[in-house]
Amino acid sequence: MIEAFANLAVLGGTGKEGKGLAFRWAKAGYKVTIGSRDIEKARAAASELNQLLGRDLVDGSDNLSAAQKADMVVLTVPHSAHKATLETVKNALQGKILVDVTVPLVPPKVTKVQMPPAGSAAQEAREILGEGVEVVDAFQSISYEHLMFGDEVPCDVLVTGSSKEARLRVVTLVEAAGLTGWDAGPIENSVVVEGLTSLLIYINKQYGSTHAGIKITGVHKA
Amino acid sequence: MIEAFANLAVLGGTGKEGKGLAFRWAKAGYKVTIGSRDIEKARAAASELNQLLGRDLVDGSDNLSAAQKADMVVLTVPHSAHKATLETVKNALQGKILVDVTVPLVPPKVTKVQMPPAGSAAQEAREILGEGVEVVDAFQSISYEHLMFGDEVPCDVLVTGSSKEARLRVVTLVEAAGLTGWDAGPIENSVVVEGLTSLLIYINKQYGSTHAGIKITGVHKA
Repeated sequence: MIEAFANLAVLGGTGKEGKGLAFRWAKAGYKVTIGSRDIEKARAAASELNQLLGRDLVDGSDNLSAAQKADMVVLTVPHSAHKATLETVKNALQGKILVDVTVPLVPPKVTKVQMPPAGSAAQEAREILGEGVEVVDAFQSISYEHLMFGDEVPCDVLVTGSSKEARLRVVTLVEAAGLTGWDAGPIENSVVVEGLTSLLIYINKQYGSTHAGIKITGVHKA
Repeated sequence: MIEAFANLAVLGGTGKEGKGLAFRWAKAGYKVTIGSRDIEKARAAASELNQLLGRDLVDGSDNLSAAQKADMVVLTVPHSAHKATLETVKNALQGKILVDVTVPLVPPKVTKVQMPPAGSAAQEAREILGEGVEVVDAFQSISYEHLMFGDEVPCDVLVTGSSKEARLRVVTLVEAAGLTGWDAGPIENSVVVEGLTSLLIYINKQYGSTHAGIKITGVHKA
């Protein structure tokens, strides 16, 4: 489903997760711009995806230009680059939705939940960006391999964020990527969505797996 | 599988969740004592379960006596009674495992994650009880109806807690109840296990369901 926000920016989109998401959305008909601090890397990632797609559907640019021309902005940087990237694009995000994919892992103890003082990366983003930007968490626990090479992704996406309207628009975006998304409530619930990643990494280590995920049971979506 | 801790106490076991768990474990061959502040209520709950079971497998007593004679103690009180109950049984718990089922919901906003200052109910319990008691979270998101009337429960149990040995013993207890349990890491991860309950209540309200749960995907248990 193509909505009004057909122009997507994926900041930090030269990383695996960002490329996987950009690939899915470009396939679904969205116009996607990969943003990076390094414009050459952004262009190379875009070109790599266009080759896979067989068409020129993805652009590359610096993070600020990508955010400026997008209707909706997706952030897929490591937590160490979260604050600096948000400050760079803060003005360009006003009035838009930020989809925050960041997981605040604290190496080397990535199997232990360790949230920042704000409560979660999403709440941190909201503090930095102010009330003019809706911040929505999604895609924290989806592996790159599933996005790039899987057809059916055996993992649901929990969507939490600062307004219900924004969450429902992001659920639409999740479904455009071929995944099942669930509106899972207010931004205070983002600690669970982000923290779940540490539990899944722990489960992978304990049970010898690589792609632990979750599915919601007992509910049928209308 | 019956282990050395075949004597279980379920404190607050006159509530729905506690009765459901006591019922499952009694069926599996554990000796179960239901504890309550009100010994008459505890005896009535035990008697109700014994009728369903067709045998006298469940006892009722006050919380302290139940905790004293048990090898492993399960706590299923509302968060408002959490601290007071733990203080009552603190001495009786030393050297044992406490399975904490408490979800720190803050009515009326039960769909919003609101953890206590310790980080979670489990961490709060650990602070009250001291290092002589292993505290393990489990069963937060399992409905009474599934426990009492379901055969296969379509919801997995995430197990977090203060030592790996204790978590693995609780995973055994989960499986004795006929459910799938996962060691999901250290006690700092309990915020996710407890917080998930608010997300599932939210999902129930949004999607018109009553028993939302989760399943771990992508992992095969040995």
